[in-house]
Amino acid sequence: MSLHARVEKALQRHVESALGQGAPKGLEDAVRHAVFSGGARIRPQLCVAVAIACGDEAPHLTDAAATAVELMHCASLVHDDMPAFDNAATRRGQPTVHKAYGEPLALLCGDALIVMAYQVLTEAAMTHPGRLPALVRNLSQGVGLPHGIVAGQAWECETRADLAQYQRSKTGALFVASVRAGALACGQDDQPWSLFGESLGHAYQVADDIRDVLGQSAALGKPAGQDQLLGRPNAMAALGLEGALEHFEGLMGQAIQSVPQCACRDMLQHLVRLESQRLIPTDLHPQVAVTRGSVASALHR
Amino acid sequence: MSLHARVEKALQRHVESALGQGAPKGLEDAVRHAVFSGGARIRPQLCVAVAIACGDEAPHLTDAAATAVELMHCASLVHDDMPAFDNAATRRGQPTVHKAYGEPLALLCGDALIVMAYQVLTEAAMTHPGRLPALVRNLSQGVGLPHGIVAGQAWECETRADLAQYQRSKTGALFVASVRAGALACGQDDQPWSLFGESLGHAYQVADDIRDVLGQSAALGKPAGQDQLLGRPNAMAALGLEGALEHFEGLMGQAIQSVPQCACRDMLQHLVRLESQRLIPTDLHPQVAVTRGSVASALHR
Repeated sequence: MSLHARVEKALQRHVESALGQGAPKGLEDAVRHAVFSGGARIRPQLCVAVAIACGDEAPHLTDAAATAVELMHCASLVHDDMPAFDNAATRRGQPTVHKAYGEPLALLCGDALIVMAYQVLTEAAMTHPGRLPALVRNLSQGVGLPHGIVAGQAWECETRADLAQYQRSKTGALFVASVRAGALACGQDDQPWSLFGESLGHAYQVADDIRDVLGQSAALGKPAGQDQLLGRPNAMAALGLEGALEHFEGLMGQAIQSVPQCACRDMLQHLVRLESQRLIPTDLHPQVAVTRGSVASALHR
Repeated sequence: MSLHARVEKALQRHVESALGQGAPKGLEDAVRHAVFSGGARIRPQLCVAVAIACGDEAPHLTDAAATAVELMHCASLVHDDMPAFDNAATRRGQPTVHKAYGEPLALLCGDALIVMAYQVLTEAAMTHPGRLPALVRNLSQGVGLPHGIVAGQAWECETRADLAQYQRSKTGALFVASVRAGALACGQDDQPWSLFGESLGHAYQVADDIRDVLGQSAALGKPAGQDQLLGRPNAMAALGLEGALEHFEGLMGQAIQSVPQCACRDMLQHLVRLESQRLIPTDLHPQVAVTRGSVASALHR
């Protein structure tokens, strides 16, 4: 089974179980819409990949940890799409949750998904209760204050924000949590995985900035040009296209180098190279292709 | 130290610690505004009272559990006050979070508070990790799907809602979680406390409905008449004033009777009687005084 298929299956099982019986229909539907609308599932796949590299000896806990990070990601998308932030009408070609179900249910849907992430983690950890504290702490660090994705989003409301700090929180924090969760689900030390998660998370944010400017709506899964429109700090504005591309390649290179020694190191490094290519394809844009050729050749050697 | 003072102190300590260093200033301020604006602290006091009745042998864990339920309550108030729901400009005589800090930060503030509740619980449970799973599960049940306060709020978006189910979720669920958390923080069985929490939670919701209609803005801490205005299911509409008052008294009587045998049973029952009087004072309204006299005399004998 592919990582993606495993993650989808875990999401299906855990979300249905957590929804339980007798919840209000509208909120149930909104939750399903938020979770099952064709996301790329990068974070949970990363969690599972790291767990496999760590032996994956409690696969049901790995699945729950992967589900939990994806539910947090979905919650952040639902709230970020709302009129108070992006006011986005579509995501992944479908209406956003507030467009489909109204603002009240979108607000509650995000809240319910955050709680559900902890529910899923807790139920699965009943077999390994000793692993729960670190898993809950890790998840909370990725989402909450002071440096989780909620803080990252809040940096957009500040008149002065440090770009690195903003990116580290807005995207990086949940990547780090996803990577660490994979190790923690196996009862292993998560520290050796931190730099891998940080580099990858940072690279994704830079890629997002680049694609936002280059207008890759389809690849982004949301309307392009939002950062500039909303005056957000972003790598393109700070570094220009060439600088942002170099930055992206550098971060991906760092991620690849920082995979700790483990049975699956080569496989994981290969996956990151493929993902790098998927994020910023060399044929994405003439400008990109030219710039990227030289940097990419160094990276992909 | 009074229960209220103990709860305030716990909130101060835990919120400052969870805020950490380096979070965006606006969100930090919004979180403090949401938590420290003069709430009655009913739920955390209830948690502490039950813990005392259970021996309170891990007071720091009791304090964290009490803090966690109050943070969830604060989160729900911040989101409920937003334009998508009540569109309330004031709460407890102060501007609501979205009025003071804008909608984006109010949205994030609620999210951050939900996560913070789990953070606080997890950090405190490091000394008693074996108690964490039940505490996290209990908190999630009180807030999430299918029957927590988020579901309760979502019933307002349904065209048909069962009043009892709505009230049980909207207010009751977090009361039950608060009561149970007190027992769980002491490592004790929470089941004997369920009926107490349910009755009390239900009584609070009915009291809220009564006071909403009678226009007790000051006592409610928010504008009165909202339920009728927003067409929400409520006890007054279903039962009329007399019926709602009888229902309230009956529920409070049930709460008093259902306090399990413990060293502090008399004290706890006395506290509930005082709280009953605070919620619906006999001199609240001429109509109430007349109606309540007969029922209350039976209850308070």
